[in-house]
Amino acid sequence: MTENTTTAGQAREAAPGRASSISAPTQFIETKLGTYAYRRFGGGAAPPLVFLQHFTGTLDNWDPAVTDPLARSREVILFESAGVGRSTGDVPTTISGMAAHLLAFVDALGLTRIDLLGFSLGGMIAQQVALDRPALVRKMLLVGTAPEGGEDIMHLEKPELRKILGDPNLSGPQILVKLFFTPSESSQAAGQAFVARLAARTEDREPISGPKVAQAQMAAFGAWERGDGDRFGKLRRITQPCLVVNGVQDTMIPVKNSYLLAENLPNAMLLTYPDAGHGSLFQFHDSFVRQATLFLD
Amino acid sequence: MTENTTTAGQAREAAPGRASSISAPTQFIETKLGTYAYRRFGGGAAPPLVFLQHFTGTLDNWDPAVTDPLARSREVILFESAGVGRSTGDVPTTISGMAAHLLAFVDALGLTRIDLLGFSLGGMIAQQVALDRPALVRKMLLVGTAPEGGEDIMHLEKPELRKILGDPNLSGPQILVKLFFTPSESSQAAGQAFVARLAARTEDREPISGPKVAQAQMAAFGAWERGDGDRFGKLRRITQPCLVVNGVQDTMIPVKNSYLLAENLPNAMLLTYPDAGHGSLFQFHDSFVRQATLFLD
Repeated sequence: MTENTTTAGQAREAAPGRASSISAPTQFIETKLGTYAYRRFGGGAAPPLVFLQHFTGTLDNWDPAVTDPLARSREVILFESAGVGRSTGDVPTTISGMAAHLLAFVDALGLTRIDLLGFSLGGMIAQQVALDRPALVRKMLLVGTAPEGGEDIMHLEKPELRKILGDPNLSGPQILVKLFFTPSESSQAAGQAFVARLAARTEDREPISGPKVAQAQMAAFGAWERGDGDRFGKLRRITQPCLVVNGVQDTMIPVKNSYLLAENLPNAMLLTYPDAGHGSLFQFHDSFVRQATLFLD
Repeated sequence: MTENTTTAGQAREAAPGRASSISAPTQFIETKLGTYAYRRFGGGAAPPLVFLQHFTGTLDNWDPAVTDPLARSREVILFESAGVGRSTGDVPTTISGMAAHLLAFVDALGLTRIDLLGFSLGGMIAQQVALDRPALVRKMLLVGTAPEGGEDIMHLEKPELRKILGDPNLSGPQILVKLFFTPSESSQAAGQAFVARLAARTEDREPISGPKVAQAQMAAFGAWERGDGDRFGKLRRITQPCLVVNGVQDTMIPVKNSYLLAENLPNAMLLTYPDAGHGSLFQFHDSFVRQATLFLD
């Protein structure tokens, strides 16, 4: 339960205006459930905003165009869950298991009130955390995600996704461009700009996720989609203000799931972007940051 | 084609900060298609924002909490279409017919570039205007409305609507509260505040619409819902930036129609509000004005 105080101190003392996910040092914290890698930067009076990452993504998959402007008026904490990157342990095969790791992490940091930005898989974990410990969570951004019992969640066997994932000519970043952005010229250009921003961090990077991470996370997606029979009933208990965001052409977690969230969460606004896929927050990063700031303030 | 320059001058010279739909004088303009009542107030460099009204609504049905803050940085023009209020002529039985009246009106005023805020019926007219004269329209706010070929548009025979419309104990304003807001305590309170704001204008009011207006407008809704076979094809030609807005519990024009708009218009953002019905813009007027301003600027 001890924090690496040297690097943590460095990060906290960095001027918020210069804080960046490109340069923030990776820190490590031991907890009762294992040791987690994370990055913490920015500052301000608002509760820290904890980022929960997508399928196979690591700390290095957060877009500085999203994280850095948000860190100007609050602390941003990027969390690496168990079994991903340099965090220890195994990836849980359930969303509940992943939520337990996030709770162990915030407890070890001594945080008692946070905002959550959950993207895709991370948005499911955010919902579970809000259910498991409601008092912890003030507000939530749920981006490109789905409720438990949602529809067509991460069916990578679909022809349009299989074609991309099985293309031997595509590098990892170029797969991201195809998966997260639409085929239009402007969306693809936004995708290239996105992967260029991700590449700006050249040192202290996390190892890329392998098939073991993917398999466990896919199992968690499957269980989340099947649900437990009480379809959307749990959503009524998530009373925090939520901002649900998606691209209308999301092929990985279709926008229908965002509609279901906004219709069943008691206090959720929905925002959708045109000509945008799963990575709408990266494509429309200026608008997204403005909307997120409005919502969080 | 002559404008009542005295009252028009008064309205234009009013300080934008004090401009209000409560006090703006009703003006009249003759055109080749008839004489229209309207109110024009506010000022600023942006194109004028023309408001297109809902089923049976008149100039007096615009909420000052929406119109007045928007008038601080642009001219707001509230338009009374043919056969409604003190505008002459008959209410057309098609959306196209209503769009022709709006075009006659803007031509008579000499406007060549406008933004449109179309609410419900008004949102359909806005879409038609954008199709009929694309160069006129810069941006559109489409609130509580539907595409041509949409679903479950204004089916007043549905039990939940018939119950409200047939209740002999409800006054006109109280019918609005039931129709435009959800049954929740907070939504109903917002509804009462809304009708109180509408009542703040005590002089120079428009006559209330009668059954003749309602019948013609219902015919137009029916034709719009049936469509012409090319379902949503026309939407691809509306390339203006659009902000689509709705409450997730709209019983008159269900939110599904807003999804269809946002999914098929090439450049539309969608915003939905929780625990809100058809009148989401009036219930969440502060947020709506902020979002509309962000979008229009």
